[in-house]
Amino acid sequence: MARPRYVHKVRVAYIDTDAAQVVHHATYLRYFEVARVEFLRAHGWDYNAWVKREGLGLPVAENTVKYRAPAFFDDELDVHTWVSLARRAVLVFDYRIDRGGKLLTEGSTKCACTTMQGELRRVPVELIRVCLGDEFDTARI
Amino acid sequence: MARPRYVHKVRVAYIDTDAAQVVHHATYLRYFEVARVEFLRAHGWDYNAWVKREGLGLPVAENTVKYRAPAFFDDELDVHTWVSLARRAVLVFDYRIDRGGKLLTEGSTKCACTTMQGELRRVPVELIRVCLGDEFDTARI
Amino acid sequence: MARPRYVHKVRVAYIDTDAAQVVHHATYLRYFEVARVEFLRAHGWDYNAWVKREGLGLPVAENTVKYRAPAFFDDELDVHTWVSLARRAVLVFDYRIDRGGKLLTEGSTKCACTTMQGELRRVPVELIRVCLGDEFDTARI
Amino acid sequence: MARPRYVHKVRVAYIDTDAAQVVHHATYLRYFEVARVEFLRAHGWDYNAWVKREGLGLPVAENTVKYRAPAFFDDELDVHTWVSLARRAVLVFDYRIDRGGKLLTEGSTKCACTTMQGELRRVPVELIRVCLGDEFDTARI
Repeated sequence: MARPRYVHKVRVAYIDTDAAQVVHHATYLRYFEVARVEFLRAHGWDYNAWVKREGLGLPVAENTVKYRAPAFFDDELDVHTWVSLARRAVLVFDYRIDRGGKLLTEGSTKCACTTMQGELRRVPVELIRVCLGDEFDTARI
Repeated sequence: MARPRYVHKVRVAYIDTDAAQVVHHATYLRYFEVARVEFLRAHGWDYNAWVKREGLGLPVAENTVKYRAPAFFDDELDVHTWVSLARRAVLVFDYRIDRGGKLLTEGSTKCACTTMQGELRRVPVELIRVCLGDEFDTARI
Repeated sequence: MARPRYVHKVRVAYIDTDAAQVVHHATYLRYFEVARVEFLRAHGWDYNAWVKREGLGLPVAENTVKYRAPAFFDDELDVHTWVSLARRAVLVFDYRIDRGGKLLTEGSTKCACTTMQGELRRVPVELIRVCLGDEFDTARI
Repeated sequence: MARPRYVHKVRVAYIDTDAAQVVHHATYLRYFEVARVEFLRAHGWDYNAWVKREGLGLPVAENTVKYRAPAFFDDELDVHTWVSLARRAVLVFDYRIDRGGKLLTEGSTKCACTTMQGELRRVPVELIRVCLGDEFDTARI
């Protein structure tokens, strides 16, 4: 009865770093964004195909990132990704990035389901099922 | 008795946009970062010179961004910047980005004052004075 | 009878740097891109308005960059910008970036004038005039 | 007797795109940079470990990119990578990016072998062997 998760593997690129010789704080939003798409793909949802087919999307409404410890060039990171809330027009993705089990970064992204014109739409039931898995039946959506 | 503020002007570059034809959500962390440095400079604090001279810095510990409305290529944005909290080893910068008075984005960055080795240090009193201005005397730091 | 030039001023942002503690080589393409738009604006050509009005654009067909010396966080750079060739569907922008007169980087961008669908179009005569200035009359376009 | 090659697979991230709804031209320098590191790793050379151990590096001295056709969000790209020249203090990496066999982008990066202080050093013989493979014996280095 576990909620779906996905571990997206990232290799830190040189361009991801800054003069403090660590991964720049904005780079984590890249890692999160890629992890969302790969989380969905891993659970059978092709985000890009859906956007093109339905004219909907999941633009970012809020981001929160907490930096616990630095990551470095060439590190292999695990971006643990799951959906913590799926209701009406909102999906919230949570992340925990670690390196070999050591926690580096935590974050959360609130996405809105919208048309290309930015009008809110309910998150499709099939997409909620993808995000919540076995917990779907009991979820109040 | 107003707290120091600074309005950093940004012209949106093409590279700042994404395929949704709006400013990409990670770009705002660039705007915030530059606004912090310019806020300090405008109030007499040369961040880079201080880092080099003292071996201290203000790495980012947390970021929060709320996206209210999109910005577009070539927009001229106002990044209103101020310090909402200055205490012990912590400075919190708040931002409000608007375009011609219309609110687009709000955000907040918690910075820690640290050595180059990442050890926490009290924010220097002179820096707190720069950040809080007239409110300094009454601030509990 | 000088060809139009423009000096775009850039302040190096922290995010522009990498773990070698210098400006990352890809960042210069950002500086060049912004410099092209500002070169045109300074000479009376609003690139964004033109794109929207005419449905044309100047996508990049080739980039060349030669890195002579590094730039650092908070440096103030001068991006000298001019058009070295304007003919048929092609504009070539050249750049020379220096810091206080010291040459750091040279570059060149070949832009194609195209429709939104990517079909080549002649560069408008008025745009060539903007780019070549007094040399326009004698240019073979 | 073929020269070593490596095909680095890239999935285009949303942040890699721009308002023209294609991969932004600067993004290719990211792809090239990662491909260089992965080319070396695939042939037994851990670039990061070498940098840390020897205090040497391969900073970029020149970049050339020719954009033939656009790439799009979520595309799977093949970054074909090889070394076209290895001599004295210089390594030149060449790239050809395609999607399903269709050529999109070609590029070349001239790297200098230097100390952390930027002084030129001969490329180590073992690294040239990694880059040139069977052709090493006959190469004039």
